[in-house]
Amino acid sequence: MELPSKHLQAAVEALGSLPGIGQRTALRLALHLLRQPEGDIEKFSNSFSDLKKHVHHCASCNNISDDEICSICTDQKRDQSLICVVEDVSDVIAIESTRQYKGLYHVLGGVISPMDGIGPQDLSISLLLERAEKDGVKELLFALSTTMEGDTTAFYLFKKLKDAAINISTLARGIGVGDELQYADELTLGRSILNRTSYEGSISKS
Amino acid sequence: MELPSKHLQAAVEALGSLPGIGQRTALRLALHLLRQPEGDIEKFSNSFSDLKKHVHHCASCNNISDDEICSICTDQKRDQSLICVVEDVSDVIAIESTRQYKGLYHVLGGVISPMDGIGPQDLSISLLLERAEKDGVKELLFALSTTMEGDTTAFYLFKKLKDAAINISTLARGIGVGDELQYADELTLGRSILNRTSYEGSISKS
Repeated sequence: MELPSKHLQAAVEALGSLPGIGQRTALRLALHLLRQPEGDIEKFSNSFSDLKKHVHHCASCNNISDDEICSICTDQKRDQSLICVVEDVSDVIAIESTRQYKGLYHVLGGVISPMDGIGPQDLSISLLLERAEKDGVKELLFALSTTMEGDTTAFYLFKKLKDAAINISTLARGIGVGDELQYADELTLGRSILNRTSYEGSISKS
Repeated sequence: MELPSKHLQAAVEALGSLPGIGQRTALRLALHLLRQPEGDIEKFSNSFSDLKKHVHHCASCNNISDDEICSICTDQKRDQSLICVVEDVSDVIAIESTRQYKGLYHVLGGVISPMDGIGPQDLSISLLLERAEKDGVKELLFALSTTMEGDTTAFYLFKKLKDAAINISTLARGIGVGDELQYADELTLGRSILNRTSYEGSISKS
């Protein structure tokens, strides 16, 4: 695709470098931007240059934060004895949006994946082990994907932590709320039978 | 969606303001950017601030250009007697990518649409009428959408230009190359019968 302006070309290449955005979509978006007032484009542009300069990783939980320690870690109303271990920042946002979780988080920054060359040393695992040894931490909740990599990471952490005096739990796996039984895959349905919960408990929670 | 950083929030809002990009996609893209090296983000950001500063509209054809007159208008190898009238810059790029067209363009910047409050005075129509009156222009090719607005615009231009000594043509409407006849809509199929072309002509062109 040959474009009539090298500046437009640069903008299309920048947008096209984003995951899931092809050349045609990038062109459509760049032309959209070109139609906006100059002030709006300036603001659009600045929001990205500010991003890397001002966003840090929380020194405690590795979540992203504008300050050294994130607002979740400094929130004294939260249960400091419970830490939810997640892969990425987007998982924190997803769990926060449920409004069901009142503990802290620990963001690993990925999962162990030998195929992609990601080992335990590439993740913030040592920081998690340090936190787990601190007084007051009673439970670690693993909220990792049920992929091979997620399961490997959970198992690695479990082996490292099994001598520590803390409970280790994982998210419940089962039929999704609103799902029809007949369309559930066998593995999920099997797990939901193995891990069945007391009916009385399930109605009092909901 | 509550985000742990107001700078991330700003980037998500910026990306979410683009057409067809929702909040979740915007978050995914912003987190992707956050994982890139600082130099890359700086380049990403600059490509937009440069956009509005350096991209102009060609004083002759209203196409976008880095210079006062665009590279198509200044290309002396092109047929200066033929002007293709299009709605938008993206149409120029689409036609250029066919490599079948060797004339000039005129970008209207939209189509007449009373519903959206767009009248002839909002488009670069007077500039087109000026160009059409110049010596040497022999044909105007209307390449507008076959929507009500596109047809209205073509008819408006036709009425304005019908006394000028130039040919006015429009793109051929018919069955798309590679399309199966049975799936073509009636209007298109009907038009393709009315505007049938000589078989000998169609094979010599392809």
